Formats: sequence, C-alpha cells, structure tokens
Amino acid sequence: MSKELTLEKINQAVKILNEKNIDMWMTFVRETGNIKDPMMDMIVGTNATWQSAFIITKSGDTHAIVGSLEYENMKAVGTYKNIHPYLKSIKEKFLDVINKYKPNKIALNFSRNSSLADGLTYGLYLELLDHFKDTDYAAKFVSSEDIVAALRGRKSHAELQIMKEAIKETLKIFDETTKFLKPGVTEKQVAAYVQEITGKKGFGLAWDKEYCPSVFSGPNTAGAHSGPTDRVIEAGHVINMDFGISYKGYCSDLQRTWYVLKPHEEKTPDLVQKGFDVIKESITRSANELKPGKKGWELDEVARNYIQINGYEEFPHGLGHQVGRLVHDGGCLLGPKWERYGNLPMLEVEESNVFTIEPRLTIDNFGIATIEEMVVVTKNGCEFLSDRQEEIYLVR
Amino acid sequence: MSKELTLEKINQAVKILNEKNIDMWMTFVRETGNIKDPMMDMIVGTNATWQSAFIITKSGDTHAIVGSLEYENMKAVGTYKNIHPYLKSIKEKFLDVINKYKPNKIALNFSRNSSLADGLTYGLYLELLDHFKDTDYAAKFVSSEDIVAALRGRKSHAELQIMKEAIKETLKIFDETTKFLKPGVTEKQVAAYVQEITGKKGFGLAWDKEYCPSVFSGPNTAGAHSGPTDRVIEAGHVINMDFGISYKGYCSDLQRTWYVLKPHEEKTPDLVQKGFDVIKESITRSANELKPGKKGWELDEVARNYIQINGYEEFPHGLGHQVGRLVHDGGCLLGPKWERYGNLPMLEVEESNVFTIEPRLTIDNFGIATIEEMVVVTKNGCEFLSDRQEEIYLVR
Repeated sequence: MSKELTLEKINQAVKILNEKNIDMWMTFVRETGNIKDPMMDMIVGTNATWQSAFIITKSGDTHAIVGSLEYENMKAVGTYKNIHPYLKSIKEKFLDVINKYKPNKIALNFSRNSSLADGLTYGLYLELLDHFKDTDYAAKFVSSEDIVAALRGRKSHAELQIMKEAIKETLKIFDETTKFLKPGVTEKQVAAYVQEITGKKGFGLAWDKEYCPSVFSGPNTAGAHSGPTDRVIEAGHVINMDFGISYKGYCSDLQRTWYVLKPHEEKTPDLVQKGFDVIKESITRSANELKPGKKGWELDEVARNYIQINGYEEFPHGLGHQVGRLVHDGGCLLGPKWERYGNLPMLEVEESNVFTIEPRLTIDNFGIATIEEMVVVTKNGCEFLSDRQEEIYLVR
Repeated sequence: MSKELTLEKINQAVKILNEKNIDMWMTFVRETGNIKDPMMDMIVGTNATWQSAFIITKSGDTHAIVGSLEYENMKAVGTYKNIHPYLKSIKEKFLDVINKYKPNKIALNFSRNSSLADGLTYGLYLELLDHFKDTDYAAKFVSSEDIVAALRGRKSHAELQIMKEAIKETLKIFDETTKFLKPGVTEKQVAAYVQEITGKKGFGLAWDKEYCPSVFSGPNTAGAHSGPTDRVIEAGHVINMDFGISYKGYCSDLQRTWYVLKPHEEKTPDLVQKGFDVIKESITRSANELKPGKKGWELDEVARNYIQINGYEEFPHGLGHQVGRLVHDGGCLLGPKWERYGNLPMLEVEESNVFTIEPRLTIDNFGIATIEEMVVVTKNGCEFLSDRQEEIYLVR
C-alpha cells in the first residue's frame, strides 16, 4: 500500500475514533513476519520484529514505539509522526506515551466476531497486562471491532477506483476462460490456464492458489472451498468457477456459470435455465433491498427464502461478504444468524461498503449454478461494480 | 510443504507430546487467510475459513474439525486421519472429540516468549472459553511453547537437506554480487540486482523485499533492519549485505563483508582488517562453545565479550537465531538477557537446531563489519552449514 493510501486510512481512523468516542487505538505486535495483525498493512505499512505499539489518538496524533534497529526503517516508511525507539524493553516509552493522554477508552485488536479486529495474540495480551500492571489501563480496554469494521468497510474514492479496475480485469479473465472450456478438459487444466493468464498479466491471486480458481464441472462435485479435480468436462455439465485477483493491494471475487451443450442441443435444458434464472433473480431481489441501515442477515434472508420457495435447498454459506485488501474483509456480513458467523450478520450495512452477492443452488444431474457479483453501497441503495451475468454462458 | 513433510512433522509432534507428557495439542484458528497461526503450514498444510481445530494426541491420533465446506479440501490435503465437518457451530463436534480423551493437559498456541507458539488470538481464546464453559478444560490449558520450540528446532534429515541447498544457492548469489559491486553504484541498485538474479533463479526472498537484502556501504549508515538507500558506494567503504532466500519452504540468512580498495591501495587498511578479524574470531569462539545443553545467552556472551574486550561497542541485537521455514524460527535464541527477548535466551540448545551466528561491529570512518554464518548443532558441538567467509572480499 502506498504511503498516501496509508495516511488516508489513518486520517479516516481519527474521524472514526471521534465518532465512536474512543481515546486511542493501539495495535500491539511483534515478529509480524511470523504472524501479522491484519491491520498492519492498512494503518502501519511495514513490519515489526520486536514488541512494537502503533497508537492513533482521537486528537489525531500517531506514535510508533519500535525496537531501536527499526527506527530508521520506520522513519523511511513515514506513516507515523512520532517514533520512539527502544533498546531493551518497550515498557518505559510505551507508558510514557500513554500517560500523556490519560485515556478512558483504549481500543485493542481483539474480537470474538471479526478475525480482522483480532490480531492481538493471547500471549502478547498477557505481555500487555504485565507492562500495564501498575496502571489501571487494562480496565479501559475495549475491542476495536467497531473501528476496524468502519475503517475497512468504508471505502475511499481511491480504494473504489482500484477495486473497479480489479473487477474489470477479472471479468476479462473469465471471458478468456470461456474460450478455453470444452469437453475433455479437466477442472485442474482450467485452473492452471486461469492462473497462467493471471500471472502473465502481472496480477496475484485473491486467495490460496490451491482453490483460486475453484472449478466445478457437472453433478456431485466437491463443495465450495475445494480445489479443482481431475474430473473431465463433459457435454451436459453445468460448470461453475469462483475466482478473484489481487490487484494493487486489493481483491476481486466473482463467480460465473456455464453450460456445455450436448450434440444437437441448441439451448440450455429447461431445468438448467430455471436454476440459473432463480439465482439471477435472487441476486436482483437482495440487491434491491441492500442499503445503509439494513442488517446483514436481512439481505441473506431475501435470497435464501427466494431460492427455497422455488424448490431448492438453501445454500450452506452466507449470501455475501465484504471485499477490500483481503477477500473476506470489513465487518458486517450478509449471512444467516448461524453461530459460526458470530455477530457479523447482525451488524448494519454502511455507505461505501463493498459486498459480494453469491447465492448457490444445485441443479440435480447437471451441476451447481452460482453467480457472484460485487456491489458498492450508496446513500440510498447499491450499485453493481461488476457487469452482471445476464445469461448462462454456453460452451459448444 | 509436501504432504510427506507435514506427516513427518506430525509424527515428530506425537513423540514430543509423549516426551513432555502432554495429552493433546490443539491449534484453534479461523480465517487463516486474514491472520495465520504460524504452526498451520508445518502441522496442517492448508488454510481454514471458519473456526477450525486441529488436534494431535499423545496416542498418535489426529482430528480436524472444520466447516463443512472445507471437508473435501481437508480430505484431499490428507494430513489428518479424522475429519469432522460441521455446518452451524463447531462446539458440539469439538467437545465430542475432546471428551473421548479425558485430557489432563491440553497445549494451546499461546506464549509470552515465542511468537511461533502464539498463534491463538485473544478473541478466539475468548471463544474457546465460551465453547468449553460447561467443562473443566480451561483449567488444563498449557502453553505449547516447549512443543513448538522442539518441533521447529529439531530439524529432520529431509529438512536439513533442503536448508543446505538453500544456503549453497544463497552463497552463489553473494558471489555474483561481488562482481556487481563497484564505486558509483548505489545500495538500492545492489539490492535490485540481487533481487533480480534471485527471481530469475526461481527463489523467493526470506523476508520483506524492502530490506532483503539490506545493503550498507560506508560509515554512518542506517542500522540493521533498514532498507538500502541511494547512498553511493565509494572507494574506502566497508560494505555489508544481509540476505536470505526462501527455497522449497525453508529459509537461509547470511551476511558478508566487502572492502572497496582506494586507488593504489593493495590491501585492506589495518583498522578494517582488525575489525574483520575480530568478527571472524568471535564467530569461531562462540561456535566452539555451541553444543546441546548450553543456554542461548552463554553463546551470545562469548562473542559479545570478545568484541568489547577488543575495544568495540557491543552489538545492539542477539548473536543469532534459529532458522527454518521462517527466518526467525525455533525457540532458543543466542541472545542477551534483555527483556525484549523474553525467556528465549534462557532456553537450552538442542541437537539438530539450526542457528545463525551474526555478530556486528562498527569500524569508525569505514563502515560496519558483519559476518553471518549458519550452523547445525550436532551431538557434541556444531557444524558450519555455510562455507565460512575467511577473508574480507575486495572490490577493486
């Protein structure tokens, strides 16, 4: 991430601290080459080896307390105004900085609900308690999950521009893939082709290369989040692909559906067409309801109910998630109230959030129909960032 | 990491659980694409999206409790014998598995001392307490730091072979760099050249590309862990480079020192030669003492004292760290008893540990002399894995 984009997000964080009335936000880390707090890339912009604290205050100050060997690097990175290097122990300078502010609420990166606001490890938390044992700061700790959800979720103009480009480039790759699909080719070959052209264009993959893309051809395939197999594409298969790229630090995440015509078949069989139409309509209906103030689960329910009313099983996952620097980003999730999603489906949609909408259904004997689009929430509704898939793509 | 190497490490973990008398070791994670427990790559070999537990028991069983959509992937990865998929909440199947074993000690990945054994985030720890609230398991939690230190530190034959190749390839890159060095070239140009030839060979970098390699030319440079600058190499400079590659999942980490001869100069000035010789001898002396059973700080002290006795300031960091899949790996550290290193310098050296030895000193008006070698601990001593730098490299 560029220094400018980091400074833009730090400024945005200061506004959010004022909005939520939290005095300071502290990101406390060590050895980020081994395990990295997910906020580091967005609000710090470099790594840290020894115990390090990155503090943003409601008053707009920024303090980095870092091992002395990383002082020069932190200066060169240039994202924090005050840098306090230490040699043997962080404790003294750490307390000096905090004491100046007499904070009532200190946000830390721990959250039962959001992995993105849960970068503080339990061992480091114990270290923190020990550093602060002669103070009452531990009583002032609050979760940063509201701050993180707002900061990651509310995309700036610059962030949205990058994401639009990422989506456009991804759809081009889907188009090239359509030409590659034919009976006799395996799922793994399709995936390898997609990765090859992505690499040639200089883009990264949005998630693990083992299942980016996921490719599913025909009935009774492996489920979502599984890698492509040696299964061969055949006439009569519905094919689905789930794929995203990493582009200038931001991700895309899209899905498209194809049908492989049988000899003498001129159009998709009615059962396949119906499945595709139900998916498409479920996206339209949930997008029509998507606007600031709605709860995540309310949107999930729209698509989930529509699909069940039409005689299909409900999909075994949420309707959509936020996307940003990470493919699963932000706070609020368009998901059902299942325990595994914590409170994320109960959060409210906000303006400038970017969501996927990705319902799924199984067409018996043919395969899985899914479409995944990306939308940005506007003042009163939402806009599609991706050119929608209007018709099932035909492979002849 | 290959499935075979993962299974080898899981088997090794079972032996260590027996040695330490711990009933089970539980790696509890979620959204590892956002923040990843450092043990995942070594003992699981894939990612997890929803709350997932990976359990290894003293009796040699392995259980993966994962979101249902990741069942197929986990089967394909093939590293866990028992896979328990869940749809809405992990709690029930999680408890079912643990109840079977009636464990007295459950190791979890939290540690105040070691980031590598501290992959459990504080929010997830709170989730775990909630899942277990009707049991007495929380009273049985112990830190996995002893297990992690042993498992990561004791390199198998297969691991050592890969690391030897990584070191050999790295030294070849140092040799090629010697030919590139000359007055007029900047530190940044040297770094770019090193990264270019590394990329062409198909290797990754062992740490952040901003300072891998670090290149320091002449007096009063930025400190270690700083990136290369626009400073121009001049005659009379001592140059130092710190660099490592990522090779088949394992890292190297080495440093070498050069001197740029002035016109008509035939050999290094005495002051430079003395600095180099003191560094070299401090490595020899600490390596002579390095063997199983020694404490990390004892080795650090040998080199630190020798350098100070010879009239130089002590180096502002530890003498050496373990290397493995990560560039800072294992438990025991060859470092001073400074608070920032926690208890790691107090741990004992074990057979098959791989350490760097990397003292540093400043030669006034010339630059920094460092050599970093890599050694493996044997039954009664240690062996150098890297061909040692015996003479300062001359740039003409």
